[in-house]
Amino acid sequence: MTDVATGALSSVLVVGTGLIGTSVALALRAHGVTVYLTDRDPQALRQAVDLGAGDPTAPPGQVDLAVVAIAPSATASVVSGLVAANAAATVIDTCGVKADILRTVRASAGGAAHFVGTHPMAGRERSGPLAARGDLFEGHPWVIVPDGVDPGSLARTEALVALCGGVPVHLGAAEHDVAVALVSHVPQVAASLVAARLADGEDETLALTGQGLRDTTRVAASDPDLWVEVLAANAEPVARILDALRQDVDHVISALHEVGVDPEWGRTALREALVRGNAGRARLPGKHGGRQTPYVLVPVVLPDRPGELARLFATAGEAGVNIEDVAIEHSPGQPVGLVELSVAPGAEQRLADALTARGWQVHA
Amino acid sequence: MTDVATGALSSVLVVGTGLIGTSVALALRAHGVTVYLTDRDPQALRQAVDLGAGDPTAPPGQVDLAVVAIAPSATASVVSGLVAANAAATVIDTCGVKADILRTVRASAGGAAHFVGTHPMAGRERSGPLAARGDLFEGHPWVIVPDGVDPGSLARTEALVALCGGVPVHLGAAEHDVAVALVSHVPQVAASLVAARLADGEDETLALTGQGLRDTTRVAASDPDLWVEVLAANAEPVARILDALRQDVDHVISALHEVGVDPEWGRTALREALVRGNAGRARLPGKHGGRQTPYVLVPVVLPDRPGELARLFATAGEAGVNIEDVAIEHSPGQPVGLVELSVAPGAEQRLADALTARGWQVHA
Repeated sequence: MTDVATGALSSVLVVGTGLIGTSVALALRAHGVTVYLTDRDPQALRQAVDLGAGDPTAPPGQVDLAVVAIAPSATASVVSGLVAANAAATVIDTCGVKADILRTVRASAGGAAHFVGTHPMAGRERSGPLAARGDLFEGHPWVIVPDGVDPGSLARTEALVALCGGVPVHLGAAEHDVAVALVSHVPQVAASLVAARLADGEDETLALTGQGLRDTTRVAASDPDLWVEVLAANAEPVARILDALRQDVDHVISALHEVGVDPEWGRTALREALVRGNAGRARLPGKHGGRQTPYVLVPVVLPDRPGELARLFATAGEAGVNIEDVAIEHSPGQPVGLVELSVAPGAEQRLADALTARGWQVHA
Repeated sequence: MTDVATGALSSVLVVGTGLIGTSVALALRAHGVTVYLTDRDPQALRQAVDLGAGDPTAPPGQVDLAVVAIAPSATASVVSGLVAANAAATVIDTCGVKADILRTVRASAGGAAHFVGTHPMAGRERSGPLAARGDLFEGHPWVIVPDGVDPGSLARTEALVALCGGVPVHLGAAEHDVAVALVSHVPQVAASLVAARLADGEDETLALTGQGLRDTTRVAASDPDLWVEVLAANAEPVARILDALRQDVDHVISALHEVGVDPEWGRTALREALVRGNAGRARLPGKHGGRQTPYVLVPVVLPDRPGELARLFATAGEAGVNIEDVAIEHSPGQPVGLVELSVAPGAEQRLADALTARGWQVHA
């Protein structure tokens, strides 16, 4: 994490200790900001507190900034409540659709120039405080809707984004909603529908699944209740893009039918669709995600019996090497698996030597 | 790699030293099988030879088995040539679509009961001999189409799959083609079309791309020429599933339009589509083919310093619990991380108790 001054922020209230709220809290705590936490679910609150995300008591007075990170449908009313109670100098929300909430809050709270709509473009398919990470936002875009916001609140919001390592992007609410329809909401619908086609597949068929399908449908595991809210709040932009997508599907179906009739035309049409897919894919920006620490992988063959991992990590510990990440590959019924240890660059040789000396099979 | 007898195979000819052919050759060499290699590209051939995949000279006589691992469009004629020349006791191919090739070969080579259509369900994003790995097929399904095959050829094919560590799956050609349309070809088309929608997006919009879109469209970067061949060879099954997918897209578009008119109906329809996506996604087998083993997660808070993991695993080992998988979440600069230990159902309480007794913070 880069060293950022806390700016105007010394105290922050996080409302909602789910993935986003707890991740914000962890990032702020790492910079010494005083963080108060609240959640209507006592277990989620306790988990966030145990992770060191902040203090579950009520703030003694007005905080510098309140972050509302709860379900979209509850956001406008909770924000309006905080605005009415004068609980924070600035209130921000983190919902994935902006026009609806801004319209509601500005209407119900007389302008509310100290409310700022924001959207951190980071997430995981898992939710809840246990999935939270202080570097969740590191290097990711964080949309801020500046319209109708007072300068102090804009500055406090920018300070929060900076403390979280996010990259601030100023966008109008409507522009934001069209953009996320394209890069997030329509891909979610497509992934869900492709996955839905598998629901009635034969076991025999599904056994042929490869990594491509796993990747294509990963987000289909997302929370339906959350996504109903997102899609409903952004219905028109999503429907418009889905309509174009449906026409593209039609075109491919026609091309497939033509392959047996006019192979030249059919193949050319298929190729164009695939080439256009290449072009779209190539436009995606590189991975932003969490400060790409270039860890080095050390693959080690591991006998599949209790105690082996302990022995492996003990050897790593004795060698003074900190294991940054672990991935275990093993097939049920196979006597050995493969463990990939991630270590900081420079430590790999020391680790490999120590492991080899203790009889491990290391693939350098 | 498990110890497998070479069975009926002592000599194998690999035609095509790309990713698949070279990986087969490497697996066979590891078991001491004599492997002859050929490729019309001299550089690919030399690279495979340098990797120790086999011998680039012509076999001195009939080999036990010939593996044809070349482009789909050239496969039927090369197979027919090998059959006509009586070059091998058994000839197999490795193409991703089976009915077309089998029809052509069986028609042109008078039955050719010693030709076996197969499809190893393994691959990488990289191609060519340098991407080859002797363990590429380890634990992956390998489809064998047994119809019209003589018993000796079936046995030799099974022996080859076993030597490569693959899991043999017997399927009819038509069943195979429908299955791969569902789990591979339609997901490819969907990914390409979602990616294609981005081709004209604003830079500002594309800057908001997250990991979900990256995953959903990863396979859209695939080779269009290869995929035109695959889709054209499997046009009818792919078109049929795309047709169903198009209807699902229509239904979601209607639901989105209804959200503003009949919110109850609109939201229910959206939710059903998303829930069905969850159900399909949940049916995907785990990394190695088999059903997802239902491990139980035990999340533990972990101080971020060397030796802590070793201490954690030592405690698990003392409790006699086998750790099946580990995921470590930690953010640079944060004092604690979270480790998720996967254990067999039933072992979680014993592990949690043992860890708690040693002072670990366990979130059950």
